[in-house]
Amino acid sequence: MINIAIMGMGVVGGGLCEAVSKNKDVISSVFGEELYIKYVLDKRTFPGHELENRVVNDINIILNDPTIAVVAETMGGDKPAYDFSLACLKAGKSVVTSNKLVVEKHASELEEEALKNGVCYLYEASVGGGIPVIHPLMHCLSGNRITKIAGILNGTTNYILDRMEKDGCSFEDALSDAQRLGYAEANPDADIEGLDAARKICILASVCFGSWYRLNDCAEITGISEVTLKHIEEAKKMGYKIKLLGVAENSDDGKNALLFVKPCLVPEDDLLYAVNGVFNCITVTGNLVGEVAFYGHGAGGLATSSAVLSDIIEAVKIKTPPCEKSKPCMIIKNIDAKSCIDILGIKYPVI
Amino acid sequence: MINIAIMGMGVVGGGLCEAVSKNKDVISSVFGEELYIKYVLDKRTFPGHELENRVVNDINIILNDPTIAVVAETMGGDKPAYDFSLACLKAGKSVVTSNKLVVEKHASELEEEALKNGVCYLYEASVGGGIPVIHPLMHCLSGNRITKIAGILNGTTNYILDRMEKDGCSFEDALSDAQRLGYAEANPDADIEGLDAARKICILASVCFGSWYRLNDCAEITGISEVTLKHIEEAKKMGYKIKLLGVAENSDDGKNALLFVKPCLVPEDDLLYAVNGVFNCITVTGNLVGEVAFYGHGAGGLATSSAVLSDIIEAVKIKTPPCEKSKPCMIIKNIDAKSCIDILGIKYPVI
Repeated sequence: MINIAIMGMGVVGGGLCEAVSKNKDVISSVFGEELYIKYVLDKRTFPGHELENRVVNDINIILNDPTIAVVAETMGGDKPAYDFSLACLKAGKSVVTSNKLVVEKHASELEEEALKNGVCYLYEASVGGGIPVIHPLMHCLSGNRITKIAGILNGTTNYILDRMEKDGCSFEDALSDAQRLGYAEANPDADIEGLDAARKICILASVCFGSWYRLNDCAEITGISEVTLKHIEEAKKMGYKIKLLGVAENSDDGKNALLFVKPCLVPEDDLLYAVNGVFNCITVTGNLVGEVAFYGHGAGGLATSSAVLSDIIEAVKIKTPPCEKSKPCMIIKNIDAKSCIDILGIKYPVI
Repeated sequence: MINIAIMGMGVVGGGLCEAVSKNKDVISSVFGEELYIKYVLDKRTFPGHELENRVVNDINIILNDPTIAVVAETMGGDKPAYDFSLACLKAGKSVVTSNKLVVEKHASELEEEALKNGVCYLYEASVGGGIPVIHPLMHCLSGNRITKIAGILNGTTNYILDRMEKDGCSFEDALSDAQRLGYAEANPDADIEGLDAARKICILASVCFGSWYRLNDCAEITGISEVTLKHIEEAKKMGYKIKLLGVAENSDDGKNALLFVKPCLVPEDDLLYAVNGVFNCITVTGNLVGEVAFYGHGAGGLATSSAVLSDIIEAVKIKTPPCEKSKPCMIIKNIDAKSCIDILGIKYPVI
């Protein structure tokens, strides 16, 4: 039996519990033995829940249990998620996470700590929900020099822009629909203002460009709150859709990186043009493979749990060491070099 | 130094030589040492080629060299590619391949032989050119129950249908353009008649459904030679594009598999609708992750070499064991259960 612990019974943690129960036979056949959730760390209690009796509120129970090899961190937020993750790694347990904030901020330290202890720190679920993207970038495209990543990284903002474009509804109406449907949080600022997408493009750039990128390496982080119906109509006349993209580019010699999040103009023949609703899509250009793309649901408990599960499987079965980060490069801090079109006073980069 | 051998200096083998030279520094940083092509097995000589002096025409030279750990089989065709691959595995060398014919026909035996010898038989490059798809399916979605795969698996036929739809040119004109541009072979039958796509859907189904599928497991293999402009126009009026898809479905309990290749009707809101020209796109539905898709160039020497390279890296660094194949299931041999629309006497399944 493989014992794991889950820290945080929120949307993703709850999804993971459901997934482990729902796909018991599939997971057992992958491992050759049963995957067992021994602890769920949460401050709350869950009366009536299948795992009610395994809920604990003291991290030390997990840290001190030598039968726990992997811990899934699905708490969200910086603290205590970061402290708990670090403590788990120091205790010789692999940590897999869906927490993009902790990954963007602390992955460099946590990955190093994991290496030191011969365990893994894996974060497939931190970008694109269940879409396999971090692992394929690390392992399947590692012979390529990656020069560009451009992605629809936030489902909420893509849903809003899509509704505005298709139904002609206002930003405010589309946002409140998104909230009603559970796509947007009560406080939607991190989505709307591009912060969520920015964290994700930093993580992807770190995976692809061989050094660590943080929020303050972005030349610009602009969300969609200034995008009006009028902008969308003007863009449409020119043959474009406005999409909120996270973009990371690197020069051919790998020495100059440019990262930004901004509403961009996407032409009709680009795959990103066809990405509707809450879907995410990440396009990546490598000097061998050309353009490839990864598409799917970017959020949701069960979908994201698919990525957490695959990291658990990797941590237990494969223990691939992380790619080396050793090539710090010049970071470009403005997007003036990009070709832009001015629509009603706002500059839109053309992808 | 990591020594490899390449069998077959065709489009993919030549692309691999170019890739190893072009991305020498990237590849060295992945391995921590240099990747060196010690032999190229080919009947021809290559006067003036950078690797001219490493060309050999006797497989025994490779088999008897204990410094060769991995052999890339990029010969194409059944024999002698199959015999040579088997001999390499028996000699304790991992084999990575782009040869979809050998994989569809012999992977079950070759994978078993690899397991027996503690080496790998890997075939990422056999489907979708450079697109990472086999590896992500095996490793990133392995916690899912996969119920459906539907893909544009052949760039030549997608290019032809695309040209017919966009430019209103005839099948014959589009085909001869494809040949002129190097997308289609002089004898294009394997592409046009759906055989190439059928091999690929068999490989994908084998990876996803937990047992081996062969060409004769397909309920139907129909290419695009009967598709006329009239069909395309009628489909367009109904809001569809006609795309040649490879489809593999499995019942929720994993017990009934249906595989076929056939021109299908793809609605506007499906991602496959937006896949133009020679691009490939594979959509996969898992019971946790929902629908995900993998998109990119499905052919070309350099693009495909990206996948061969990633398999070489996996064979050397990771040596992941293959997923177990243990769940033979009922194979459905007709597509009557699919919902179809009749256009001018031809039945098109709706995706």
